[in-house]
Amino acid sequence: MSDTRPLGFFDSGLGGLTVLRAIRRKFPNENLVYLGDTARLPYGTKSSDTIRRYTDQSVRALLNFDVKAIVVACNSASTAVLDSKLPGANRIESAVPVYNVIEPGAEVALQASASKRIGVLATRATVSSGAYAKAIATLNPDATVFQHPAPLLVPLVEEGWETDPLTNLVIYRYLAPLMAQSIDTLILGCTHYPALREGIQKVTGNGISLVDSAQAIAEILERDFHSGVLKRSDNHIDSGAKGRLSLYATDASPAMDATAKRLMGDLELPPFEPCDL
Amino acid sequence: MSDTRPLGFFDSGLGGLTVLRAIRRKFPNENLVYLGDTARLPYGTKSSDTIRRYTDQSVRALLNFDVKAIVVACNSASTAVLDSKLPGANRIESAVPVYNVIEPGAEVALQASASKRIGVLATRATVSSGAYAKAIATLNPDATVFQHPAPLLVPLVEEGWETDPLTNLVIYRYLAPLMAQSIDTLILGCTHYPALREGIQKVTGNGISLVDSAQAIAEILERDFHSGVLKRSDNHIDSGAKGRLSLYATDASPAMDATAKRLMGDLELPPFEPCDL
Repeated sequence: MSDTRPLGFFDSGLGGLTVLRAIRRKFPNENLVYLGDTARLPYGTKSSDTIRRYTDQSVRALLNFDVKAIVVACNSASTAVLDSKLPGANRIESAVPVYNVIEPGAEVALQASASKRIGVLATRATVSSGAYAKAIATLNPDATVFQHPAPLLVPLVEEGWETDPLTNLVIYRYLAPLMAQSIDTLILGCTHYPALREGIQKVTGNGISLVDSAQAIAEILERDFHSGVLKRSDNHIDSGAKGRLSLYATDASPAMDATAKRLMGDLELPPFEPCDL
Repeated sequence: MSDTRPLGFFDSGLGGLTVLRAIRRKFPNENLVYLGDTARLPYGTKSSDTIRRYTDQSVRALLNFDVKAIVVACNSASTAVLDSKLPGANRIESAVPVYNVIEPGAEVALQASASKRIGVLATRATVSSGAYAKAIATLNPDATVFQHPAPLLVPLVEEGWETDPLTNLVIYRYLAPLMAQSIDTLILGCTHYPALREGIQKVTGNGISLVDSAQAIAEILERDFHSGVLKRSDNHIDSGAKGRLSLYATDASPAMDATAKRLMGDLELPPFEPCDL
């Protein structure tokens, strides 16, 4: 049985487009709806109560699109919807599965790590929540997690300075304390960071595995499609056509369009439609 | 006749505290109410429609405190409340005067400039609005204005890297195109930038006058107190006591408290109280 209802994606802004891109590549027949709360971005500098309230509103807005599942494609927002298995975490009420990107990232990082010494680079909100450390401890209590907040990386990506020497200096500054802990795996704990993958890998060297949210959630969705927890949309397979892609944002500006284009790379982007929360 | 009603200050976040500090120093007997929309900051990356809507809500919230005047102590928000004398500008409905920081900055910059070649460093929203160029052209059509957006400076201040060599590199990058235009005056068109005054002056050299919003609005309020447009609160003069200072914010976090302390310098800060918009 095919389920042609769309997969819903929510992000505080545009960073989640890196997740959307990975899902679009891996599951080209799925209909996708993306909602970016660009009017209130970023979430990563805000308190957990405020992030929780905004995320609740956005999940509710996505449910109006009759989605079959929701991916909270933003690490800071994901800290507000962590699975109830985790100590101190809470679950958003929803009739369809709500995925976060923290737990998949934790799982993939543990698979990648031999020494179980794992670094996390993330926004201030994600670091303060301790969400990655908790998720990793739940899966493997022997692993050790080292975190560092990296609040300048999002603005640097939005400025378009991804490959700028100045950005490399900032990356080095943030990574040095993590490198000093002999980590062998680094979680890119914010959906903007894949845009800086090259600069980050230059600092870490090739001996350290980089785990990003897009790759992690794609693996988890693949598994849930396979096990039947989610049903694929195969309505377009015969015709060779791709699933529909719909983008919504709570605010729009030329600078945001430029950032969206950079984050999506070679994937074509329909225009953003307005959405009030 | 004394008017003990408070002066209201609105900012998208904490940058307006640099304005509050200047007013507190110059008019210690005034009662002051400050409202920071920290839950939705920053405004400087957002569209003019969204900035206008948020600013409207905040001005309305401040009116509930029975203020005698409102200072929109944020350049990006000020672009939404410019005086109706300016072409294409619109005025917020209010029973009390609503001051912006753009027009005072334009006026003080023109006084400081001999060559009438004036640079503006500001957020993307303020630069896009062209508000400083319009305000300066209205006062002196012969002046030439050169603008540059500087979106990384606010996050650098919030990271606490005001005196960091990396910040100086970013400042140099933003200022170089303005310096190439032989400006003799530079408007610091965002209330966070006074925290970077030292680094900015290092790049410009002492031959260039720096104009900041705090200094500019303080001069305009002084004039309006003097002319009687506004009445002072002198209720505390006899006792030597200072006016009351009340702070409200739409979101709170330890990182915000740290930024607030840095921006206020040696002035003591009461705790922020919550406020919903």
